Amino acid sequence: MEVRYRANFINSLSGFKSANLIGTQDSLGNCNLAIFSSVVHLGASPALVGFVMRPDNGSRHTLNNITETKCYTINQVSAGFFKQAHQTSARYLQQESEFEKTYLETQFMDGIAPPFVRASRLKYAVTLKEVIPIKLNSTLFIIGEITDVISDNTVIKSDGYIDIEALNTVNISGLDSYHTSKRILRLSHAKPETEPKTLFNLG
Amino acid sequence: MEVRYRANFINSLSGFKSANLIGTQDSLGNCNLAIFSSVVHLGASPALVGFVMRPDNGSRHTLNNITETKCYTINQVSAGFFKQAHQTSARYLQQESEFEKTYLETQFMDGIAPPFVRASRLKYAVTLKEVIPIKLNSTLFIIGEITDVISDNTVIKSDGYIDIEALNTVNISGLDSYHTSKRILRLSHAKPETEPKTLFNLG
Repeated sequence: MEVRYRANFINSLSGFKSANLIGTQDSLGNCNLAIFSSVVHLGASPALVGFVMRPDNGSRHTLNNITETKCYTINQVSAGFFKQAHQTSARYLQQESEFEKTYLETQFMDGIAPPFVRASRLKYAVTLKEVIPIKLNSTLFIIGEITDVISDNTVIKSDGYIDIEALNTVNISGLDSYHTSKRILRLSHAKPETEPKTLFNLG
Repeated sequence: MEVRYRANFINSLSGFKSANLIGTQDSLGNCNLAIFSSVVHLGASPALVGFVMRPDNGSRHTLNNITETKCYTINQVSAGFFKQAHQTSARYLQQESEFEKTYLETQFMDGIAPPFVRASRLKYAVTLKEVIPIKLNSTLFIIGEITDVISDNTVIKSDGYIDIEALNTVNISGLDSYHTSKRILRLSHAKPETEPKTLFNLG
């Protein structure tokens, strides 16, 4: 397979991916913002989140800043600013801020150094816990603990579920296709010999 | 936070998740099928895919079978059988097949031992490459190489992108909410000082 064909093809196989902007700052205060489609839930207690990065490409500024400062923000991308989010993947220079270049406004919170994306309605601060090298293809699996969550209260349901569809959070397929979602339903915890019940039909 | 509330809340933070059924077989030929929402693309060359599992819960049969046989299948879940896919997360016994219990038909391919899900229109065989223990919360990151892909040809575009939306592939938010997707558009590779162009508007 030709390189680009292969990239598109293999990137489609894992299914829909999350769309998140990772905000960081270097020790001089330069802000950086980069889109990642590999953010994955690792566990609720402790609250751990991971993502995959390739250190030799455009995301090296993110990596440098995270290893230097040990903290970053993760900001869900919604339909209202997904084009700007996509544009952060262009190769800007270390001293150039993707916030400025893509017209995404920063937002700072007391006690948290790295910048949030103001436009994001669900975002959180993360402290670096571990960088796991994946030797098979020289990528890194970056694991952090969620310390502070900023969310639109109106979409948090009584059981803790956050209705990210109501936030217009997008998802990605392949390398470059952006999608909104359409809820089918929520299903109850599965038990043997029992049909799963519809838990909530929020849609 | 109460345990279940916390699980729902933290599971919502990473954004939309992929929905995949992982098919395995033990050395006696017992088939197992389990749904995972943590399958993540790791790289195109070699074609690597990872997923997270907690060895102490219902997915231990999957783990045992993978470490024993070194191979498994990953099957994208579509709207047509997502309830059955969800039901595979019930705690069945080792000798019980989730295929039978959830009325999902197996499909076998020459030279590949583990079972595929016949109903899935995009599925692939994977060879185990590495099991990385995540000590922070005693989970495992399972990495495999994709060896064989079975896909509906009509949804593979000329640039290699697979239109998984046309397959009705679902995605998950939180622990239990299932969604179909609605494409906004595909964007061209981002370059500094250039607006991303619409690549394809397949929707």
